[in-house]
Amino acid sequence: MSEKVVMALSGGMDSTTMLGKLLRRGHEVICVAFRYGSKHNLYENRAAELVAEHYKVNLFSFDLALIMSGFKSDLLKSGGDIPEGHYSDETMSRTVVPGRNMIFLTILAGLAWSVGAQKIAIGIHQGDHAIYADCRKEFFKAIDTAIYLGTDRRVEIIAPFIDGDKTSILKWGLANKVPYELTRTCYKDQPISCGVCGACQERLEGFRNNGVSDPISYEGK
Amino acid sequence: MSEKVVMALSGGMDSTTMLGKLLRRGHEVICVAFRYGSKHNLYENRAAELVAEHYKVNLFSFDLALIMSGFKSDLLKSGGDIPEGHYSDETMSRTVVPGRNMIFLTILAGLAWSVGAQKIAIGIHQGDHAIYADCRKEFFKAIDTAIYLGTDRRVEIIAPFIDGDKTSILKWGLANKVPYELTRTCYKDQPISCGVCGACQERLEGFRNNGVSDPISYEGK
Repeated sequence: MSEKVVMALSGGMDSTTMLGKLLRRGHEVICVAFRYGSKHNLYENRAAELVAEHYKVNLFSFDLALIMSGFKSDLLKSGGDIPEGHYSDETMSRTVVPGRNMIFLTILAGLAWSVGAQKIAIGIHQGDHAIYADCRKEFFKAIDTAIYLGTDRRVEIIAPFIDGDKTSILKWGLANKVPYELTRTCYKDQPISCGVCGACQERLEGFRNNGVSDPISYEGK
Repeated sequence: MSEKVVMALSGGMDSTTMLGKLLRRGHEVICVAFRYGSKHNLYENRAAELVAEHYKVNLFSFDLALIMSGFKSDLLKSGGDIPEGHYSDETMSRTVVPGRNMIFLTILAGLAWSVGAQKIAIGIHQGDHAIYADCRKEFFKAIDTAIYLGTDRRVEIIAPFIDGDKTSILKWGLANKVPYELTRTCYKDQPISCGVCGACQERLEGFRNNGVSDPISYEGK
C-alpha cells in the first residue's frame, strides 16, 4: 500500500521537484499551498495550482495572510522593497519571515494526523542554511522531534534533499521531467520574474550549473 | 525595562491565571485569541475579550477555523458530540485537536520575533499530560528547542505552571483576584456551561479542592 505524505507546495523549484520525487517513490501525496501575504504569493500559488494539476494531486489552500500581516519581513506585502543581490548578502536576511517554516510544518503535521498520513515532507537543502534559521539541519532535527512527540508518535518529517543543493535537486528534476516551465521562484510582486533578486539569481545559477537554460521568462529578456 | 511576553489567551482558567501571573511579575504581555472552529470557541473567545479588557492588555484575534476545518476532532464543529465524563476516560481523547498547541506556539513565536518579544508563555500543567501529547513535558522541551533554533535563538518558551496542577493554579489565582467569573471552560456549544463534560468536571474539582464555589453559572443549577 502506498504511504501518504503531506507537503507544502509553494510552486517553486524545490517543492515541485520534491513532489515529483515523492510520486516517483510511489507515495500518495497531499499538497498544501499557503497564502501568507508575501509579495510573490499570488504568482507562486498560481504556479502551485498548475504543478498540482500537472501531477494530478490534491492541493489544499490554507490562508495565513491575515495572521501573518503583523509579522516583520520585507518578503511580505507589509514590508519594505525586496533587496536585489545574492542570497549570501546581508540584505537578504530582511526577507526571512519569522517562524514561517515552523508554522507551515506544524499545520502540515496536524493535517497529516487528521488524514492518517505518517509523514510530512520538507524541501530544505544545503544551500538554504546561511540566513534561514528554520532551514538548518539542527532546527530540522528539533522540529522533527517536537512534531513526533506532539502528535503522540504519529507523524515524522522527511527531508529528501537535506544533503543536496539547488544544483543537484535540479539535476534530478531535469532527468525526471519535472515541469519547471510551470514553476515560480522570483520574490518580487510582478508576474514576470525579475532575474535580479536573490531567489532568481540562485535559480538561474542552478540552471547554469546544469548546463541548460531556464524555461521561464525573465524581465527584459 | 519590562520584558515582553506573547501568550495565547483562551479565556479559560489556566491562561487567564497565567496572564495575571505574568503581569504580576511585571511583564508586558501581548495576548492572542485563536479561533479554530471548536464548538465552544465563540464563548471562550468572548471570555478572552472580557479578560483582556479586565487586565487592559492587547489581544490579537487569529483565525485558523478554515485551515483546521478539515482536522479530525470531536472538539471541532466538524466532529461528533462532546463526550461527557472525566478527562481520564478514553472517550476524552476524541477531543484532542491534532497539532493544536504546536500550531499555536509556532505562530506565537513568529509574532514574538516580529514584535521583539524574547518569550512566549504556555499554560501547560501536570494535569494535562494523560491524553494530550502536546502538553507533556517531553514535548514542551522539544518544541522549546525547535522554536529557539527556528527563531535564530531569539525566542524561548516559558511554562510557569509546568510543575503545578489545576488546584495549585487556582489557589494562586484566588489569592490574586484573577477574575474567574469572566472565564469559560466548558467544551460544549452552548452559552451556559454544562457541568458534565471533562473540562467542566476538572474545573469544578479545582474549585472544590480549594474549598470555594465557582463564580460562573452551570446548566440546571
